[in-house]
Amino acid sequence: MIASAPAGADPSRAIAYARQPANRARWIGQLGELLTFASISALPKHRADVRAAAEWLAGHLARLGLDGSRLVPGIDGGPPSVYADWRHAPGQPTVLLYGHFDVQPAEQKDGWQTDPFRPTRVGETIVARGASDDKGQFFAHLKAIDSYLRTDGRLPINVKVWLEGEEEVGSPHLESFLDRYPDLLRADATLVSDTEMAGRGQPSIVVSLRGMLIADLRVRSGASDVHSGRFGGAVINPIHVLCRMLASLHDQSGHIAVPGFYQRIPDTPRVFTSLERRTIRPAIDVNGIAGGYVAGSKTVIPAEAMARLSARLVPQQDPREIAEKLRCHFRAVTPAGVRARFTISTGSRPTTIPRDHPAMHAAVRAVTRAWGVPPRFTCSGGTIAPVEALQRRLHVPVVLMGFGLPDDNIHAPNERLHLPEFFRGVETVTHFLAECAR
Amino acid sequence: MIASAPAGADPSRAIAYARQPANRARWIGQLGELLTFASISALPKHRADVRAAAEWLAGHLARLGLDGSRLVPGIDGGPPSVYADWRHAPGQPTVLLYGHFDVQPAEQKDGWQTDPFRPTRVGETIVARGASDDKGQFFAHLKAIDSYLRTDGRLPINVKVWLEGEEEVGSPHLESFLDRYPDLLRADATLVSDTEMAGRGQPSIVVSLRGMLIADLRVRSGASDVHSGRFGGAVINPIHVLCRMLASLHDQSGHIAVPGFYQRIPDTPRVFTSLERRTIRPAIDVNGIAGGYVAGSKTVIPAEAMARLSARLVPQQDPREIAEKLRCHFRAVTPAGVRARFTISTGSRPTTIPRDHPAMHAAVRAVTRAWGVPPRFTCSGGTIAPVEALQRRLHVPVVLMGFGLPDDNIHAPNERLHLPEFFRGVETVTHFLAECAR
Repeated sequence: MIASAPAGADPSRAIAYARQPANRARWIGQLGELLTFASISALPKHRADVRAAAEWLAGHLARLGLDGSRLVPGIDGGPPSVYADWRHAPGQPTVLLYGHFDVQPAEQKDGWQTDPFRPTRVGETIVARGASDDKGQFFAHLKAIDSYLRTDGRLPINVKVWLEGEEEVGSPHLESFLDRYPDLLRADATLVSDTEMAGRGQPSIVVSLRGMLIADLRVRSGASDVHSGRFGGAVINPIHVLCRMLASLHDQSGHIAVPGFYQRIPDTPRVFTSLERRTIRPAIDVNGIAGGYVAGSKTVIPAEAMARLSARLVPQQDPREIAEKLRCHFRAVTPAGVRARFTISTGSRPTTIPRDHPAMHAAVRAVTRAWGVPPRFTCSGGTIAPVEALQRRLHVPVVLMGFGLPDDNIHAPNERLHLPEFFRGVETVTHFLAECAR
Repeated sequence: MIASAPAGADPSRAIAYARQPANRARWIGQLGELLTFASISALPKHRADVRAAAEWLAGHLARLGLDGSRLVPGIDGGPPSVYADWRHAPGQPTVLLYGHFDVQPAEQKDGWQTDPFRPTRVGETIVARGASDDKGQFFAHLKAIDSYLRTDGRLPINVKVWLEGEEEVGSPHLESFLDRYPDLLRADATLVSDTEMAGRGQPSIVVSLRGMLIADLRVRSGASDVHSGRFGGAVINPIHVLCRMLASLHDQSGHIAVPGFYQRIPDTPRVFTSLERRTIRPAIDVNGIAGGYVAGSKTVIPAEAMARLSARLVPQQDPREIAEKLRCHFRAVTPAGVRARFTISTGSRPTTIPRDHPAMHAAVRAVTRAWGVPPRFTCSGGTIAPVEALQRRLHVPVVLMGFGLPDDNIHAPNERLHLPEFFRGVETVTHFLAECAR
């Protein structure tokens, strides 16, 4: 038996509003506008697109009826974020709604069937970069707010909305942001919808995230590319060295061979399941490699080759300590005659979310009301850098209640949002805001 | 004591012409025009530039006074070549002058200090892609012809000029060309200037070239890129597999570890010198590698990674046999769960040039006259695919008398031609044509 929501926190009118086809159609159109911004934070040439998405959102939050909607300037040249709030529920808790409007890179030639920034309706999905990660998901928060303000003219609790523009590059300025604006994001809990469900009709709340370390390894052997006919066999080829160094990261069975990597975590000799290996076990992956010339027959020995790699970390693994172990390992396997440079670009700690908190209880009730089944608590293999930072700095739990599906193709070509899950997500957030009320 | 040239083959007026500053200045201007064509045969987008260079050359050969200058259509969609001749010396031998007007790829961002296709005078050099390899070098042939025809109105022997447009991609249509035009290139000897001297003032004639094999290795593990947070640790990363497979090509000491690779050649356990390793010993080099994403923080596990590699082969090594050994090796080291595809794009055999031939003797005399010292006979580590084919098919030796210097940066950024060597090269070819006369 689920406890009733307190008086004055009745979501029924908002939910009825969210079910009207005309409203749904309008929302899909609005989300389509948001998805046209190529807000790729990893690529400097898309700086203006990131900013344009922020401006569009600031306007949208103001039109919803939130107060003080504005761009908050980025720190140290980072992109702006978007903030607005509604604080007219005295005595009620305040929930911070977090989302990120920046997206992963996407180019049609990577295998997209449609232009990644021309949102396309395919059956019950919208295909576009950012459709699920994370524009479509945080948009569900905004439409829950929309539904309340258009019907009741008020929200059941206080909310702050903060939308970030550099999550996909590891939120490098978030700590400085929290230093500069120590009170801006203060709340009783944070809600983040940037995770996936176990499957259709199987809602889940994520209670652990892997940490991450992103780094570059560059191997340089000469001052300039040389001709492989004239020098092949007599000079060191940095591609060969890089391949050998990267191959040394794992043993033949795929076990990580960096000394001390497993030091702080249980490393029983048992075989882990696929699910375990991608959620509660650490991993190191080379995400990209480049060197020399592959577009034609240019027989060079390049002066340099490089790889970008990332490690996924589990509790007890500290990114700085792991970075140091990787640095030592690469130093040990660097042969004479080359210069290897290992550079960390970003790191974030693994996160565990406490389950026993009023906001988490409210989330469980909200999911159960909206989906008819209680959520599963799941461990995610991904990393949402701000979740760790927000939880540690704001001292309140981050409720990871996401509405993505495992086949949303996030970070991959043909990313998509399943609309039935999106609309159910709106209802879930609507219930959540009511359930948070005292 | 060097024997005199036969009567009627006096190069003195041509040589005096080649030394006049006004003529040299005009030639530098002409070469500058030729170097502006971005005639990169490896890149389809430069097809029109390759053709434009051919057309410019056909016009230039006609203006020199050669007969029948024309574009010869390429075979199977290959680029056209350029042919012209002068055959008014009955009873005298015929020499085929070969050169190639296509060039290696070059982009300013690769480390060029100037635009690679805006030839720039820097001290006593011209900096441009193709300045030394091979536009500047075969241009010395043309200017020797120019000098004779402007002074004597005739050449001491018969010549055929054939300029090719796909040497840098391994002359893939040359065999078919020789099948289709069996008589066009028939001659008593071939002269190729596409090699380098031992150093300034140290002319050399190359008497062996390494063979070559160019191939791609592609490793594919999935249908599409996936997110390394969600899947890292649980799926096979094709970059890891590719690195491991490429690392297996050599042992720790750099010795090639492909079974049977050294089978037909003496492989004494002694240490080879650097010069030996780059000329008379075989080599395998990865010339390029690509996979995933290195331009930003895109944490993907790509579906595919690929490398382009080349082997340099020495006498007794057959490219087809070596290709098969590489294929077997890669098959043996391909782990379960991935598909590895090994594709040969071109191969050519190693070449040895006979030294005891009238044209070779003429070359030795010409070099000695022009430089004051006899040439060294050297072994080159490079590959000039047409040299092997021309020698085998035309049954006459290819005299490899080049005027490049070891620091010409061929196949690398800031390629350059040293003008003193170029002008001395013109005189050497002028002497050579006279010395070939009976």
